[in-house]
This record gives sequence, C-alpha cells and structure tokens, in this order.
Amino acid sequence: MKNRPLSLLIVFVISSLAARARAADPLPSWNDTAAKQSVIAFVEKVTAKDSPDYVAPVDRIATFDNDGTLWAEQPVYVQLLFTLDRLREIAPQHPEWPNQEPFASVLKGDLKAAAAGGEKAIAELVMATHAGMTTAAFEKIVVDWIATARHPQTDKLYTEMVYQPMLELIDYLKAKEFKVFIVSGGGIEFMRPWTQRVYGIPPEQVIGSSIKTKYELRDGKPYLVRLPALNFFDDKEGKPVAINHHIGRRPIAAFGNSDGDYQMLEWTTSGEGLRLGLVVHHTDADREYAYDRTSKIGQLSKGLDDAKSKGWIVADMKKDWNRVWIGKALDTNTSDK
Amino acid sequence: MKNRPLSLLIVFVISSLAARARAADPLPSWNDTAAKQSVIAFVEKVTAKDSPDYVAPVDRIATFDNDGTLWAEQPVYVQLLFTLDRLREIAPQHPEWPNQEPFASVLKGDLKAAAAGGEKAIAELVMATHAGMTTAAFEKIVVDWIATARHPQTDKLYTEMVYQPMLELIDYLKAKEFKVFIVSGGGIEFMRPWTQRVYGIPPEQVIGSSIKTKYELRDGKPYLVRLPALNFFDDKEGKPVAINHHIGRRPIAAFGNSDGDYQMLEWTTSGEGLRLGLVVHHTDADREYAYDRTSKIGQLSKGLDDAKSKGWIVADMKKDWNRVWIGKALDTNTSDK
Repeated sequence: MKNRPLSLLIVFVISSLAARARAADPLPSWNDTAAKQSVIAFVEKVTAKDSPDYVAPVDRIATFDNDGTLWAEQPVYVQLLFTLDRLREIAPQHPEWPNQEPFASVLKGDLKAAAAGGEKAIAELVMATHAGMTTAAFEKIVVDWIATARHPQTDKLYTEMVYQPMLELIDYLKAKEFKVFIVSGGGIEFMRPWTQRVYGIPPEQVIGSSIKTKYELRDGKPYLVRLPALNFFDDKEGKPVAINHHIGRRPIAAFGNSDGDYQMLEWTTSGEGLRLGLVVHHTDADREYAYDRTSKIGQLSKGLDDAKSKGWIVADMKKDWNRVWIGKALDTNTSDK
Repeated sequence: MKNRPLSLLIVFVISSLAARARAADPLPSWNDTAAKQSVIAFVEKVTAKDSPDYVAPVDRIATFDNDGTLWAEQPVYVQLLFTLDRLREIAPQHPEWPNQEPFASVLKGDLKAAAAGGEKAIAELVMATHAGMTTAAFEKIVVDWIATARHPQTDKLYTEMVYQPMLELIDYLKAKEFKVFIVSGGGIEFMRPWTQRVYGIPPEQVIGSSIKTKYELRDGKPYLVRLPALNFFDDKEGKPVAINHHIGRRPIAAFGNSDGDYQMLEWTTSGEGLRLGLVVHHTDADREYAYDRTSKIGQLSKGLDDAKSKGWIVADMKKDWNRVWIGKALDTNTSDK
C-alpha cells in the first residue's frame, strides 16, 4: 500500500510509452514515401500551436470522396450493383417490366442495351429502386443488402473493399481533432446506414447526391417518403456547392480520386493558409485495379495533368501503399466516439 | 514539497466540489416549475447508463428553431430588418428602384404598400439583397451588419436579444453530449456567420432556408456565387425534410415556438423511445412580447391546441423564465469546444 503512488506512476509511464509507440506511425499501411511524408508534415503544421500554419480545431474540416477514394468502384459503382440486385428482387411486383425498357434489358442481363438509353434510362432504374418508399424502409433495404451482397470479382463484402490506408488517414485526422466528412457523388441515403460502422463517420457528416423527400402523415403518424425526383447531384461543381450548403465553411484538406473531385480539391486548396489536396491514383492491377484517363468509372485525367501545378499529392496505390484492403481488424480500426 | 501530493488532492477535491455546485442547477434562469423539471427529467433519463430510456451519445440529436425560440422575432424577423437596411444601403447603385415596385415603396418607408405585392414582392426584395455576390462577400455583409445594427424598439444589438434560458438549455444539452442543431426558416447563410460566437453552434450544425449557389472561376480563382433562386424553404413540412437531409437521423429533442415548428416537433416526438418536444410560448409583454394565435409573425395556434395530446412542454415565458435576455455574461456562456 505504501508504494501505491509509485506503482501508479509506473503504470502511467508505461501506458504513456505504449501510447507513444502506437502513435509513432499513424499511417502504417503507407510506405515511407513523399506522399505519406507530405500528409504528416501538413497535419503537424496545422495542429502545432506554435506553428505559423496553425488552424484551430473548429476549422479543421477534411472532406473525402467515397467511391474509389475510400472503397473500390470497379468494375462499376457499388450503388449500381445494388440497383441491379434490387431491380431483380422487386421485378415480380412489376409484371410490366419484361416489356418495358430499360427494365427488360436489365432483367435479361443485357446491361449494355439498358445503358443505351443514356442518362434517362439510368435515372429510371435508380428511381424505380430508390424511390417510392419511406426513408426508414430504404434504410433497411440498404442495411440488409450491404450485410450480405458480395463483389462480383473478389467475392468480398463491399464493406471489406475499403482501403486500409485511407481508414488510417481518417483515424489520424480525427485523432488530430479534424471533423471528417464524406462528399460523394453517390446517394447520401445509400451511404449513411453504414458509414458510422465502417468508417467511423456519422450520418450528419455524410454528403452525397439525393432525391427529394416529402413529409407525409399516414394514420396520423409522420413519415418521410422518397420521391422519384432528383434533389441534388453531388459531383464536379456540385461538390463545393454541397460542401458550402452542408458544412458552411471551406475544408482545409480534401481527398479524391477522379475528375469528379477536381472542383472539391480546387475549392479546398485555393483557400488561404496551408491546405492539403490528395488524389488516389489507381495504379495497382494486381492488388486492386489500374485505371485513370480512359476509364468510364472514376476517370482521372485533368486531375493528373494539374496536380503538380495545384500542389496536390498524387498517391500512387502501387508505390505508396503497402496494404490495400482492410482486414478483420475493421472493428477496432473504425470505432467512433 | 513533502506535502505536494496532499495539496494536489485538496485542490482536486475543491475544484470538484465547485464544479458540482455549478452543475447543480444547469438552468438557473428557469423557475423551478413543471417545464424545467420535465426537461431535466428527460435529459437525466436519456443520459443515465442504467436507465431503460438511455440513448447513446451519438444519437443525442437536439434541434432548435431560431426566430422566436433562441432570439426575438418581433416586431418582424431580424432578417427582414436586415433586408430593409440593406436595400437602403445599396439603393444608390439602383437608380431604377424609385420607379419600380416593391423597391419604391420600401425606399419611401411604406412597408405596407411593399408587402401588398405578396410573396413575389418579398422574394424580389430578398433576392435583390441576398443574391448576386459571392458567399464570402455575403458573409462579410452579415458580419458587419450584425455587429452594429440595433433593434428598433429596444435599441439593443440583435445578438443581445437572445434568450438566456434557451442558451442555458443549449449549454446543458451540449454538456450532456448532445449534438445541437439550429433548424430555422431563416436563411442558412444569414445565421452561420454568428451562431458559433453567439450560441456556440458551429456552421455545419446550422440548417435553414437557402438560395442556390454556383461554382465559378474568376481569373482562375474559384468562388461560390449566390443566385437569385430559392433552393429550399425550411419551414413547416420542410423542417423534417431538411433534418433528414442534413443530419440523417431523427432528433430526440426539438425546441420551437411557432406553428412553423409543428412538423419538426411532431417528427421528433413520434420516434421510438423517450422524446422531448418544447414550445416557447411568448406571454410576457413586459419583458419581451406576448403573441400567439393571431400574430402574423411566429403564429402559434395548432401547436397550442395539440401540445397536451402530443406530450409537448409549453414553456410560458412569463411564468417559467426568471430572466429573458442574455447579459454581458454572453462571452463566457457561449464559448464552444
């Protein structure tokens, strides 16, 4: 008993040392290349109180694209695969679909013919699967699907096709008192049911494309009903607009992977003071995919051309990441507040 | 030196006791009536870990209306007074206005004639003053105005016409790990420049009505430009829609004062589990204003009729509040994280 203060002190010192050791490398899945060094240098400069680049915690806003930046987007966007699964699931309730494009082609498995209808056809497929139910019902549909649906090429759950290095970045920024947002071209209500669990990002920090909703009483009980009408398309020029609408201030760091993120990166890095822009370049056909200028999904061309003059870091997946996918460690890596 | 651990212990005990004394009454400007007791009982039930009504911190979402709930809205909304001031300020740049309604009437001081043009006239006045500049320029206009403009009847700054009891509620909820949002019919960009300073609520937790914005490059530098087109009207049925869009989950507590808040209260309190709805009833003509069913601003009629059956607390300003306005203590009361 006499030595209790001493033993407490020892415990304290040991845990501090252990914590420091853990903190020593916040980004273990990143190789020690320029990309990693630049990210860490940025974070240290904006968080050190005596730094000329210091930014108060309240202004430490970071935005991440989702498809291709936090999880895989090949061979097509996950939400498109959800849409197709969902179409097949509800087809029995739509006896008219076998005689109606673009549904007929989808049900026959001919996606090329379905896509021939262009944007109008795609909008019809999306609305048929994403609208017409309450927000609560849609949430359940997404939760059920994401729990079991598997990637056509890897057979992994989609939530296992999340990039470990990017998760480490999110956790690192959160530990440094950044408020982290997702700003995605994907559907806001398609992401929110699982972003807290998978990324540690709560629904109110998820921004995306949306359809309109309507407040409605049914037997005196209120519901929000999803309508087949676009509310906002959160891509390209839409991203800074949505950032302003939802967050109300300019991020100091932005992370993307395609030209759909160009304006978000541009908006973020043209603010005053030190800023960080990072583009994930998919260069790893062995571990993931390799695509950029000519890809229909996640095209990256202008972003590659301008990265140097804009001061954006291009993270080369093959060279800069020593690990791509999250593993079973997911639960511990992504626990949130 | 020998007694250092002991003196540290004493300091610790004393500060703990002082903190407990301060914490003893989190709502000192509320009289000890049923309203206050119900609020505290709710908060204690949802935050006590062993309570059947326990809610995890991540789900502790509270929403507050602004006009008439957090600050005064009589004789007319503050934003309308801003609009009129602004019209007079920029009138010299609009030589056509003296011959053009509704501007001509406003410049002559005949608001009744201006209002005769109905919603279309009001929209024209709002767009003429709120659109056509960058978001940064508009923010500066608001910051400059709110720093000096004074209420026509009290001669106070508008930010001094904030209700101390409601600020105490915000601080109390924040201390209990609630995430507090403003959900107002007022303009989102009219509030965000000062809500952090005055209420301790950061811009990303402010939801309101909005006009459209456009991403634009000028000499290679990006700007967001405010367009003369309504984006969203955040009132009545719009409030639950906006809550879902911005927050992505249902609040467990909502605070309003007019029938414009009815659906927000209804949406909040029809969720499962324990919920809190509170309506501020303006009953104090001496210290503030007394108005409800027949007022053109902040009309409260259906809310009064249904409060009892819906289980909403009606806070009677005259009976329940021992103090109305914030005082010079503002800075210490509203500091944020």
